[in-house]
Amino acid sequence: MSTSTQPTSTERSWVPLREELRGVEPYGAPQLDVPVQLNVNENPYAPSAAVVEDVAASVARAATTLNRYPDREFTELREGLAAYLGREAGVVVDPAQVWAANGSNEVMLQLLQAFGGPGRTAISFAPTYSMYPEYARDAMTGWVAGRRHEDFSFDLDEARRLVREHRPSVVLLPSPNNPTGTALPHDVIGTLCELVGDDGVVVIDEAYAEFRRAGTPSALELLATADGQGHRNLVVTRTMSKAFALAGARLGYLAAAPELCDALRVVRLPYHLSAVTQATALAALRHADELLGKVEELRAERDRTVAWLEEQGLEVAPSDANFVLFGRFADRQAVWQRLLDDGVLIRVTGPEGWLRVSIGTAAEMQAFRSALTGALAHPTTEGAGR
Amino acid sequence: MSTSTQPTSTERSWVPLREELRGVEPYGAPQLDVPVQLNVNENPYAPSAAVVEDVAASVARAATTLNRYPDREFTELREGLAAYLGREAGVVVDPAQVWAANGSNEVMLQLLQAFGGPGRTAISFAPTYSMYPEYARDAMTGWVAGRRHEDFSFDLDEARRLVREHRPSVVLLPSPNNPTGTALPHDVIGTLCELVGDDGVVVIDEAYAEFRRAGTPSALELLATADGQGHRNLVVTRTMSKAFALAGARLGYLAAAPELCDALRVVRLPYHLSAVTQATALAALRHADELLGKVEELRAERDRTVAWLEEQGLEVAPSDANFVLFGRFADRQAVWQRLLDDGVLIRVTGPEGWLRVSIGTAAEMQAFRSALTGALAHPTTEGAGR
Repeated sequence: MSTSTQPTSTERSWVPLREELRGVEPYGAPQLDVPVQLNVNENPYAPSAAVVEDVAASVARAATTLNRYPDREFTELREGLAAYLGREAGVVVDPAQVWAANGSNEVMLQLLQAFGGPGRTAISFAPTYSMYPEYARDAMTGWVAGRRHEDFSFDLDEARRLVREHRPSVVLLPSPNNPTGTALPHDVIGTLCELVGDDGVVVIDEAYAEFRRAGTPSALELLATADGQGHRNLVVTRTMSKAFALAGARLGYLAAAPELCDALRVVRLPYHLSAVTQATALAALRHADELLGKVEELRAERDRTVAWLEEQGLEVAPSDANFVLFGRFADRQAVWQRLLDDGVLIRVTGPEGWLRVSIGTAAEMQAFRSALTGALAHPTTEGAGR
Repeated sequence: MSTSTQPTSTERSWVPLREELRGVEPYGAPQLDVPVQLNVNENPYAPSAAVVEDVAASVARAATTLNRYPDREFTELREGLAAYLGREAGVVVDPAQVWAANGSNEVMLQLLQAFGGPGRTAISFAPTYSMYPEYARDAMTGWVAGRRHEDFSFDLDEARRLVREHRPSVVLLPSPNNPTGTALPHDVIGTLCELVGDDGVVVIDEAYAEFRRAGTPSALELLATADGQGHRNLVVTRTMSKAFALAGARLGYLAAAPELCDALRVVRLPYHLSAVTQATALAALRHADELLGKVEELRAERDRTVAWLEEQGLEVAPSDANFVLFGRFADRQAVWQRLLDDGVLIRVTGPEGWLRVSIGTAAEMQAFRSALTGALAHPTTEGAGR
């Protein structure tokens, strides 16, 4: 739909929308047709011919029985995801500990529908992913956001205060954090799980986990195990949108105690994962090694980008993700616009003064560096406060 | 997942599930491995080689850019669905009047999230589709069910009473009705739209509309038009699961005033329709004529089934769908079991004493008739109350 066909607010005034949704604009980054797209943390590498071929063959097989409903429990996919997580993080994950849905956002909504709801509260710590409060609103769940330290590291004292005051039934925390790229240490996650206890679940959103630097652990290591170690109220979410370069296929998933996965079966819409989605995800999993090879390249490019930004005298948040937050600018909107004028689309997000750039190919990052160099040399957009 | 790996209720007792979900079993018909599956109203005809090939080619094209997020507004798909509805029902439908999601159940959830919610009420009239109260629960919306007449026709007096008493913000009505197969006349839908007014939306669920008998109209004819006719609070939902034989692909959609479609953009999860789903649905739309040819066959088989059941002296609900409700049996469970013993799976649903059979191929319906003849001859499962 072009914007011109959208009804105006006057035309919409008769619509019996819920009060709290009136005047709310739909979420979404601007979709602009720009040569270098570094704004929504996509993986810049298109699927290889081998992946495309396997996806098509896998879907063709599924298509022969599309007149039938799909496997409601997506058994084969759960097995594939469990095996992948085990390899990726060096932990044992059982298929009964895995759940999946159409993108992490549906996973998050289901978590809030099951464990949140009216009279319950979800909390996070800003700066944090901007969609979380919308998921909470869609699940009619109270929303409270505490703060991180100035350097974006986690403030455990603030967390203790917030948990005591609000008794949250859901804690939502990205690690690495979006938009700052900051990973959470194990002791923070463990302490949070203990603070919340059986009153709620602690959701560590590892959408970007595969990009973490050497030595940064995954929260998967902290899941409850058969021998009584770990935390049974811990949920670790992942997605195939980033490391697997599969944003268009919408496959989010999680690992947690089997009892939590089972609880999600009550709120999931029956047959929520299509046979086509299951077939596509299974094909991508067969190519995990190839796709993770590209992740290696992106991690190196990310580290080069951080170093280069620092050389320019900018402030840069240490990043374990496929994006980098940098600043600060007196007028970040003007810097963003100058880059856009040069054909490079990045994102105005995070605290005032900061900008976020997704890591693209080497050529795309060259274009970014060149455009930013131009912007920094320009009198009206020169960095301020650094 | 085999049932044995599901946690027991004791193992689940620590889970911080919302109070109203405790002890609730996940929805879903039993998934049994039986030769003749006539229990979930699937289309018995698997996609042809031409459809499978087009789906695979369409997905292969989409797969080359799966690293990017899909078109959030699914523009091409909305155009394709609008054109199809126009042809099928002989009305003009604009792409801005079309919305789609992962199955009609996600469409229904989004409608309830936008127009229902805490403090609001959704109503329907029993017997009605058994999932509706679950959607209402998932959207934290009050649920009230009135009654239909004994012969399953619509009771407008009951509707007037219920609307006056509960001021519903959502009315959910299948036409043809599931599980009875009964279509709603235009005057009932028009009166309901007027009774509800701008306090809410009237959702006519036409999942099975393509199977309606000659002379039965579609509610699409009652949508508001540019010249001021029709009802702006009317929503007509459809699905590709039945007539398009695409249950495995999960594509539900609706037609309504552009202002209502626009309102759903606020509650939809961003990028809820994957590029793969969009590609699959577009491929199937290109084969609409072939697929609707099979619908013709199924309608004829449905009419033969109704006539045969009546010849057996059974009560049969007139059906505009791809299933037939028949009865009554003193012990319907025993009849169901005898058919299952003969390899024919039908569904125990609807009012006490009735059973529902989906329309399969000619051979499958022969197996059904043969099994039912055996059951009717058996002393313990002989029909009662007819």
